[in-house]
Amino acid sequence: MAPQYAPSLRSRLAPLLLLLQTGFIVVFAFYVDIETHSFNTDLTSNFYAEFQDVHVIVFLGFGFLSTFLIRYGFSGVGFNLLVAATATQWAILLNGLESWYHRGKISLNLRSLVVADMCTASALISIGTVLGKTNPVQLTALPCWSLLRVRSAVCANTFLHRAAKVQLLNSIMQLHIFGLFGLALTWVLYRRGSEQRFEKEKSGYESGLFSMMGSVFMWMFWPSFNSVLVDERTPERHLEVVCGTYLALAAGAVAAAAVAVLLNPEGKLSLVQLQSCIQAGGVAVGVSASAVHQPWEAMTIGFSAAVLSAVGVQYLKVHMLLAHQCQDTRNVLSTHGIPGLLGWTAHLLLQLWDSEDHTMAIRFAVFHLCTLFVTLTLSLLMGIITGILLKWNFWRTPQDKKCFDDQAFWEFPHLAVRK
Amino acid sequence: MAPQYAPSLRSRLAPLLLLLQTGFIVVFAFYVDIETHSFNTDLTSNFYAEFQDVHVIVFLGFGFLSTFLIRYGFSGVGFNLLVAATATQWAILLNGLESWYHRGKISLNLRSLVVADMCTASALISIGTVLGKTNPVQLTALPCWSLLRVRSAVCANTFLHRAAKVQLLNSIMQLHIFGLFGLALTWVLYRRGSEQRFEKEKSGYESGLFSMMGSVFMWMFWPSFNSVLVDERTPERHLEVVCGTYLALAAGAVAAAAVAVLLNPEGKLSLVQLQSCIQAGGVAVGVSASAVHQPWEAMTIGFSAAVLSAVGVQYLKVHMLLAHQCQDTRNVLSTHGIPGLLGWTAHLLLQLWDSEDHTMAIRFAVFHLCTLFVTLTLSLLMGIITGILLKWNFWRTPQDKKCFDDQAFWEFPHLAVRK
Amino acid sequence: MAPQYAPSLRSRLAPLLLLLQTGFIVVFAFYVDIETHSFNTDLTSNFYAEFQDVHVIVFLGFGFLSTFLIRYGFSGVGFNLLVAATATQWAILLNGLESWYHRGKISLNLRSLVVADMCTASALISIGTVLGKTNPVQLTALPCWSLLRVRSAVCANTFLHRAAKVQLLNSIMQLHIFGLFGLALTWVLYRRGSEQRFEKEKSGYESGLFSMMGSVFMWMFWPSFNSVLVDERTPERHLEVVCGTYLALAAGAVAAAAVAVLLNPEGKLSLVQLQSCIQAGGVAVGVSASAVHQPWEAMTIGFSAAVLSAVGVQYLKVHMLLAHQCQDTRNVLSTHGIPGLLGWTAHLLLQLWDSEDHTMAIRFAVFHLCTLFVTLTLSLLMGIITGILLKWNFWRTPQDKKCFDDQAFWEFPHLAVRK
Repeated sequence: MAPQYAPSLRSRLAPLLLLLQTGFIVVFAFYVDIETHSFNTDLTSNFYAEFQDVHVIVFLGFGFLSTFLIRYGFSGVGFNLLVAATATQWAILLNGLESWYHRGKISLNLRSLVVADMCTASALISIGTVLGKTNPVQLTALPCWSLLRVRSAVCANTFLHRAAKVQLLNSIMQLHIFGLFGLALTWVLYRRGSEQRFEKEKSGYESGLFSMMGSVFMWMFWPSFNSVLVDERTPERHLEVVCGTYLALAAGAVAAAAVAVLLNPEGKLSLVQLQSCIQAGGVAVGVSASAVHQPWEAMTIGFSAAVLSAVGVQYLKVHMLLAHQCQDTRNVLSTHGIPGLLGWTAHLLLQLWDSEDHTMAIRFAVFHLCTLFVTLTLSLLMGIITGILLKWNFWRTPQDKKCFDDQAFWEFPHLAVRK
Repeated sequence: MAPQYAPSLRSRLAPLLLLLQTGFIVVFAFYVDIETHSFNTDLTSNFYAEFQDVHVIVFLGFGFLSTFLIRYGFSGVGFNLLVAATATQWAILLNGLESWYHRGKISLNLRSLVVADMCTASALISIGTVLGKTNPVQLTALPCWSLLRVRSAVCANTFLHRAAKVQLLNSIMQLHIFGLFGLALTWVLYRRGSEQRFEKEKSGYESGLFSMMGSVFMWMFWPSFNSVLVDERTPERHLEVVCGTYLALAAGAVAAAAVAVLLNPEGKLSLVQLQSCIQAGGVAVGVSASAVHQPWEAMTIGFSAAVLSAVGVQYLKVHMLLAHQCQDTRNVLSTHGIPGLLGWTAHLLLQLWDSEDHTMAIRFAVFHLCTLFVTLTLSLLMGIITGILLKWNFWRTPQDKKCFDDQAFWEFPHLAVRK
Repeated sequence: MAPQYAPSLRSRLAPLLLLLQTGFIVVFAFYVDIETHSFNTDLTSNFYAEFQDVHVIVFLGFGFLSTFLIRYGFSGVGFNLLVAATATQWAILLNGLESWYHRGKISLNLRSLVVADMCTASALISIGTVLGKTNPVQLTALPCWSLLRVRSAVCANTFLHRAAKVQLLNSIMQLHIFGLFGLALTWVLYRRGSEQRFEKEKSGYESGLFSMMGSVFMWMFWPSFNSVLVDERTPERHLEVVCGTYLALAAGAVAAAAVAVLLNPEGKLSLVQLQSCIQAGGVAVGVSASAVHQPWEAMTIGFSAAVLSAVGVQYLKVHMLLAHQCQDTRNVLSTHGIPGLLGWTAHLLLQLWDSEDHTMAIRFAVFHLCTLFVTLTLSLLMGIITGILLKWNFWRTPQDKKCFDDQAFWEFPHLAVRK
């Protein structure tokens, strides 16, 4: 078979990357400095350990999670690293805009690296829907858009809540709901010609184990992901979030396995389905974290999220493809979207339940709904705009094949016969 | 080939998991709360980092360690996660019984999560003997029994030592000796029909590397496993345990490789044997940790444990199968049992050596022996009882094949030919 | 095919390992104790977490990085563990010589474990050039020499700087430049008979993913590697190094991918090349860390190092082989040597730039050059001596095949056909 050449790598990807990176260095040179004075007071002891856990989730977890696609293993890991390395630098700049406005410089500290990692996670979730269907130029361009969207949503929500004088939500945690951006995107990009359906989603034995490795790392370090940005001056909140996430993940894993067996036509377990569902508990508790105080609340949320996620992977994925021509490679809807919405609902209910002041409760509910509305609208709208932009021929050369697997982008290893 | 259908997954596993998980949530709702007041005083800085290391050992290490069985990779990782997620919740409840008795509530903090993880490790060690020979219903039911046994052994030992007014041993560290439970279990379950012998234990190239990954993670994080529960008010003890374990593991790895080469009929190394033996140093030092104060003591213990373990894997495994019809899939006897007993002996000798008061030394020796006796008796007895219970037909449907590999339980990936 | 028997494993490796290990235990018994008093004052909170990150780089990162050789996976991971376990113990002794001279005992604490890990990393980098071309006896003997060399270079440099009353460089960071030792070594050992060229360097699909895993772990934990030995009393320096390394790695990864695409004749990415180049940014910033204060400086250094490294992997490797008969299995020259020299140059330039006193600046430059000269001379000289020593027949038996792949050393798994 002749090699499937992808000229866009050389004519588009390389210049784009060099341009972006040079630009970042210039901007960093003029506008970013390291904020040393806050180091001692701001951060307690385990911050660095949690920072590394988040790092593992973003670079290793998301990367190896994509290797379940047997023809997309190298691309999954390699492009994930590339996209994440670009996105973190971009996120540092975007998140520092406010600080730049006030004091002329963007401050860099451990906390801003963690926030950048989490925004990058949001971008990586979004592109999970178009894996195997886009070329690396598009993949690298996407996060820049994605992060603008995250940034604008966070700004809009902050504005809303300040206007209403309601307790500020932890907006970053809505990154899972931003995942719906990817759905709109894949809907615009691939409405036609999905007859191949799941052809590209074939997985293999070793590729299953590699993605399970990524998945288990995410599962294990999810408590750090949810708790790292909790205000360090309240260690009891920190403990609540760690214990809650730990229990929600455990409850979610058990529930997901049970429901997966019940729904599967052969009564068997599916590794890919399990990988999508075991995270659901952590996602839902992360979104509702600031209102969850009791272990059993976290467990119930984790249990329900896993059940919904397992149902979603089994039925919704095929439904989305058949009814809406919307193919979701990495089950972003069921892994992040639905559990995120469940967590949002749980947050609302728990807040209303705990609230004693009636007026305050109604005000909170209204603005909680507004937040969701803003987030969803921005996600879907930006998804559609991004999809239209990505259809532009600028991102690929006419010679490019329509094939987006490892063969097209990677110098393929000489498959030596192992004697 | 027709799919080998395992109806017990749907008719037994799913209801069992849902029932267990719902039960846990209800019990947690009434009896568990988060103990916030102890957070600041109890835990020093690196506790969270060590907690995550233990987490990696339990969920990733034990999981991928089982992937060396070429037909059991998915089951090894998947069921390990499932069993561990169930067992940690159960362990939190069992370990909190005392606190529940005194104040009506079970307190949850980081320390109790770590203790739960370690009890789970004990259960995972036990089921290592029956991997590939039991269905997931039995695998999930086992830890509940196992943990009852661990709990009762810890209680019995605590009672013994309080009665004798001797310094309390770190009972949890005896979890390796509890591994002998699995031997009794596999003896009861599989006395007959072991003619296939090592047929199921075939390993492959990639599966060897996956299990090596699990093994290296356990090896690296073993210092955290041994030191995490050392009283934090004595940082010098903590340092002794970390340095001792680090050196014992290094000495053990070197000794294991040398002895493995000497014993192997072809004079070659075996990856599976190495995986079993390099942990032995950490196991032995963990059991004897409270009496080891000098680096060279730790290194000598690690060295001896690795030598014994390598001999055990080479000769004892076949002997146990031929003479006692007792098949030990994951070499639990040589990896945990023998090093555990060696560590126990080293602990006794070192304590007698350090002791100046003659009467006290004899009293200590007697109760040290009693502890071992109680632990061993409980392990073997419970192993036999569990084996008899598991033979009960409740755990499987008559239609179940006798086949317990990935084919039976997992929707097998479509082995796409990689072009 | 008849098994390729390697008698040297039994007749040389096993006795050597047992002798070394027994010797270590005896020396540790007489000369090493645990330094407990410094525990509280010396180490701040995240030291243990960073220690474990370095541990992961040394034992998992370097180990799995070598699995890209399809016929050398087991050996890559297994011998890496063996060599590292030997080398850490030896490094603890060598690094403690000064303390032994002053107070008669070698002190052991967490810091000395980390320093031992880093010296081991230096040895592991060196042997990267001869992987797949030496037997395990030679591999295990090498680090003992290597570490003597590292030790002597550190001593010479310390002496130089004390004599000149210049600010002491962080000599350990020059470990990457020590990698050139391996080049001299492979030049002496394999000048003739390199007609097979890259025959042994075939890589496969799964082996590519395994080595990518090792590579991603090194990439993620590099900030810990560079910052762990920064004086803990200056947390702002610590933060500068962490942020600088993080950004340099990100900039380096992006630049490496772009340049790799531009240089590749097919315009594709190569996973092995990417693995070699993404670390370059971390290496260069590590060497120059004590003079880098601004984020953009770190990013520029990372960017340049990655570009040079990508060029080196593409052209220099073949050139070294054809022109100098010097085969460099793991691209040590381009991954560690060139970025190390670049970091050294950057350090000099930044120091001169920052310096206000003219005389001081010139004195610094002179001694900085001397340091490099001493390091390079010692590396190359010791490399040649080591190469001549290793040609000695003591290290192998005449019956040994010339074949150094997994087949020769490992009891090969029965390649069961997966049904």
